[in-house]
Amino acid sequence: MVLTHYPVVNKVGEVIASAVTNLDLHDIARAVRTFGVRTFFVVTPLADQQVLVRRIISHWTAGGGGRHNPDRKEALGGVVVLDTIEDAIQHVQQASGSRPVVVATRAARCDGSVSYGRMRQMVESGKPHVLLFGTAWGLSEAVIQEADYLLDPISGPTEYNHLSVRSAVSIILDRLIGEEA
Amino acid sequence: MVLTHYPVVNKVGEVIASAVTNLDLHDIARAVRTFGVRTFFVVTPLADQQVLVRRIISHWTAGGGGRHNPDRKEALGGVVVLDTIEDAIQHVQQASGSRPVVVATRAARCDGSVSYGRMRQMVESGKPHVLLFGTAWGLSEAVIQEADYLLDPISGPTEYNHLSVRSAVSIILDRLIGEEA
Repeated sequence: MVLTHYPVVNKVGEVIASAVTNLDLHDIARAVRTFGVRTFFVVTPLADQQVLVRRIISHWTAGGGGRHNPDRKEALGGVVVLDTIEDAIQHVQQASGSRPVVVATRAARCDGSVSYGRMRQMVESGKPHVLLFGTAWGLSEAVIQEADYLLDPISGPTEYNHLSVRSAVSIILDRLIGEEA
Repeated sequence: MVLTHYPVVNKVGEVIASAVTNLDLHDIARAVRTFGVRTFFVVTPLADQQVLVRRIISHWTAGGGGRHNPDRKEALGGVVVLDTIEDAIQHVQQASGSRPVVVATRAARCDGSVSYGRMRQMVESGKPHVLLFGTAWGLSEAVIQEADYLLDPISGPTEYNHLSVRSAVSIILDRLIGEEA
């Protein structure tokens, strides 16, 4: 699972690098750990943002946070910080021995997107998959075009379509990997 | 949907009143709006915490935040701050004309909890339901005992069981009300 801070778009559709949000790391690390995702990649090319992410992780893994909350230590210990989405794909390829299937996500409805049922079957087949999430107003068009698949948007019974990336990751991991008690 | 700050338990199981978290309000308000939940109740008996919640809401509904981000205004405009869980139940009863079914949630597995499939059918029946979520380390035992139902915990394929309340609310609303695109 890749949390992407570049290239993403802003409110008016321009490609930007977004800032890392502390709580994204915590919430998503906990969800990733719950659903047994292999690796949580945080992608940002900005050196100061990489330093920030490593400082947050270090507080909870090597520092006082880990002693206070060992469950958080376990979750954040699995975070890997990289410059680009391609670096994350390469990382998975080296770990698994084969090029992973790259799956993009977006909030808007688009032609050709794939259902959760079908993607769940693909994930269960055992082939490695890389799931891309965008921060800010979402992944850039180029990232979505280059991905192997685009997942259906999450929809409720309303037209409102503005979940946080933390909520979207939680729901999508549950739909693809979750199970009833 | 009720986000409960009292009575909840701390790490060692003592009943406490927890502090309101800004991002809980944002993320949960957006999820509630997406899934068409009627009302998002924030329950805290602490006067200073109620002031804080109202100030956050006001910034996004009457203040600069709403002009900057109308979608957030729409989501946070539906938040109702109350002293107790019973106040929220009364509020729903007055709005709907009948006593709602009260459903508690907790992270741990317990005997007698109800499945998502069954609860989804109950919600779809049209009878009003109040869904209780705890902050901190979860709802107090007394709240769970007094509820009409306890929902199954969320489980992934791992034993790790420490989702944020923001993730838990998102996943549970999706399981009870969400639909595929």
